[in-house]
Amino acid sequence: MKKQDVQELFNQCMEQATADELKVIHQLLTGVQRKKQKYNDSYISAILNMEKFPSDNEYKISIPINTLTDNSLGIVHGGITATVLDTVMGTLANTLVPEGYGAVTSNLAIHFIAPGKGEKMETIAKIIHKGTNTLVIEGTAFCDNGKKIAHCTGTFFIIKK
Amino acid sequence: MKKQDVQELFNQCMEQATADELKVIHQLLTGVQRKKQKYNDSYISAILNMEKFPSDNEYKISIPINTLTDNSLGIVHGGITATVLDTVMGTLANTLVPEGYGAVTSNLAIHFIAPGKGEKMETIAKIIHKGTNTLVIEGTAFCDNGKKIAHCTGTFFIIKK
Amino acid sequence: MKKQDVQELFNQCMEQATADELKVIHQLLTGVQRKKQKYNDSYISAILNMEKFPSDNEYKISIPINTLTDNSLGIVHGGITATVLDTVMGTLANTLVPEGYGAVTSNLAIHFIAPGKGEKMETIAKIIHKGTNTLVIEGTAFCDNGKKIAHCTGTFFIIKK
Amino acid sequence: MKKQDVQELFNQCMEQATADELKVIHQLLTGVQRKKQKYNDSYISAILNMEKFPSDNEYKISIPINTLTDNSLGIVHGGITATVLDTVMGTLANTLVPEGYGAVTSNLAIHFIAPGKGEKMETIAKIIHKGTNTLVIEGTAFCDNGKKIAHCTGTFFIIKK
Repeated sequence: MKKQDVQELFNQCMEQATADELKVIHQLLTGVQRKKQKYNDSYISAILNMEKFPSDNEYKISIPINTLTDNSLGIVHGGITATVLDTVMGTLANTLVPEGYGAVTSNLAIHFIAPGKGEKMETIAKIIHKGTNTLVIEGTAFCDNGKKIAHCTGTFFIIKK
Repeated sequence: MKKQDVQELFNQCMEQATADELKVIHQLLTGVQRKKQKYNDSYISAILNMEKFPSDNEYKISIPINTLTDNSLGIVHGGITATVLDTVMGTLANTLVPEGYGAVTSNLAIHFIAPGKGEKMETIAKIIHKGTNTLVIEGTAFCDNGKKIAHCTGTFFIIKK
Repeated sequence: MKKQDVQELFNQCMEQATADELKVIHQLLTGVQRKKQKYNDSYISAILNMEKFPSDNEYKISIPINTLTDNSLGIVHGGITATVLDTVMGTLANTLVPEGYGAVTSNLAIHFIAPGKGEKMETIAKIIHKGTNTLVIEGTAFCDNGKKIAHCTGTFFIIKK
Repeated sequence: MKKQDVQELFNQCMEQATADELKVIHQLLTGVQRKKQKYNDSYISAILNMEKFPSDNEYKISIPINTLTDNSLGIVHGGITATVLDTVMGTLANTLVPEGYGAVTSNLAIHFIAPGKGEKMETIAKIIHKGTNTLVIEGTAFCDNGKKIAHCTGTFFIIKK
């Protein structure tokens, strides 16, 4: 990929950009920076501008809700909700395993409850079961008004890194 | 959001951009264009450069695999897999409902099978059950070598738009 | 079915019955009585000798653990655990719907955590979400020593009877 | 448990038994015989009179539908459906593991599709993924008219016996 090609594509985007598109491009580029600075450890986390709040035996992650996160109906895309839930649950899982081990998602069961709307989506992960080979974790996603968007449970395998 | 702020952020990103970051920025901006041109109907679909292949009673979507789709272990992020599966299953579901109706995800159950690797992730959605109030859809994600990455089933509610 | 055939089959069973089989036959016949007396509203609930403990916004059901409930490995059969969880969750769901409505299971996602052992399996159902068209309910099964056997979530449709 | 107590309970049951109850008692006692003769390896399988049909890379189990299998609405109890699905999937799983190993259910995700009615419920299990540590299996339950009752997927752990 040549720098010039990226520059030209950017110029094209900017020429006709709506106010909404400017915000989206800004968030995407902020994401590239966040990933480079290792504030987030994956591009998808970085681009969604995930904010992390660890605490004892729990983990919270929040993201801004806007056109970038929405589906064609103007509510948060179910895949985005699943992504943040998988991330918050997996992050908690990884804090629970011994040194030299990691936790990988074996399965997720998500119930979608209500449309994701408002300024922010907040998610919280809690422990259901902590075993020697597996973890069962619960994740819940909320609107900023406290309404539940989705509820998820997942099994995580504990594996040697 | 001022144009100038976006321009400055872009310049910062470009100054120190690695070859890999140039590719990521190019894909993100291509996504912004794809959304503007209505080639994809949500930003997440556009940014992941989802290619759609409808056919009778089935639907396929594929995305390129690269650093943009990967998690911190260098394999496709489980949330990305979930997002493409939710999209391909929901898209199939929406082709099956009568005029004036839509299909929304009620729940998803995803089994993660093997790491997503290679150049492309291909997904296919099939009908398990087509009822008057609900649909049950199956989605499978594959590496380009044919290996299964994940298997998913979901219930979709049929609602009046 | 002639009375005499049932009597002969019973005699056969009794002739060679081990102590364990006597207990099983006694529990099965107790189940037939419990169903007849409407103490339980289905044969499976009656035969498993389900004891019900309703309370505000929660529901508990317990069953005795013995050879009748065990699988070939000598631990509670996963299907029995699923049956009690489905029953306790569905029973709670049905207490939450308006007069003239019922709740039917749309889906269940069960994580099996540890072997069901001991004298009793205790289950508890709690509300995750109470909507106008659906309910999301959580169910947990425990050994009598407090160890979790399984965790389940389910969506229930609210339908007119 | 004394023989005499069982005999007395049986006599009580028989005195007032309806035609339907006679059939139920006969099926239950047949189950006790089937378990004793090792035709079925658990009481729940024996009492439900599960018939097994192994074949290459698939497994089928069918049960008679009657008052014994029904819930209070007169359709097959969701827990019974879950039990037969868990059994057929687990039985297939156990045919796929090496000598000295067993397969145990890690999780099940069941979508209930239509009421179980008719004379028989037929279930079939198929392989979704066969790995070295886990298996992903699919199970489907049908009425004898071919209508789907439920669809299930599950992850099974392969463990040393």
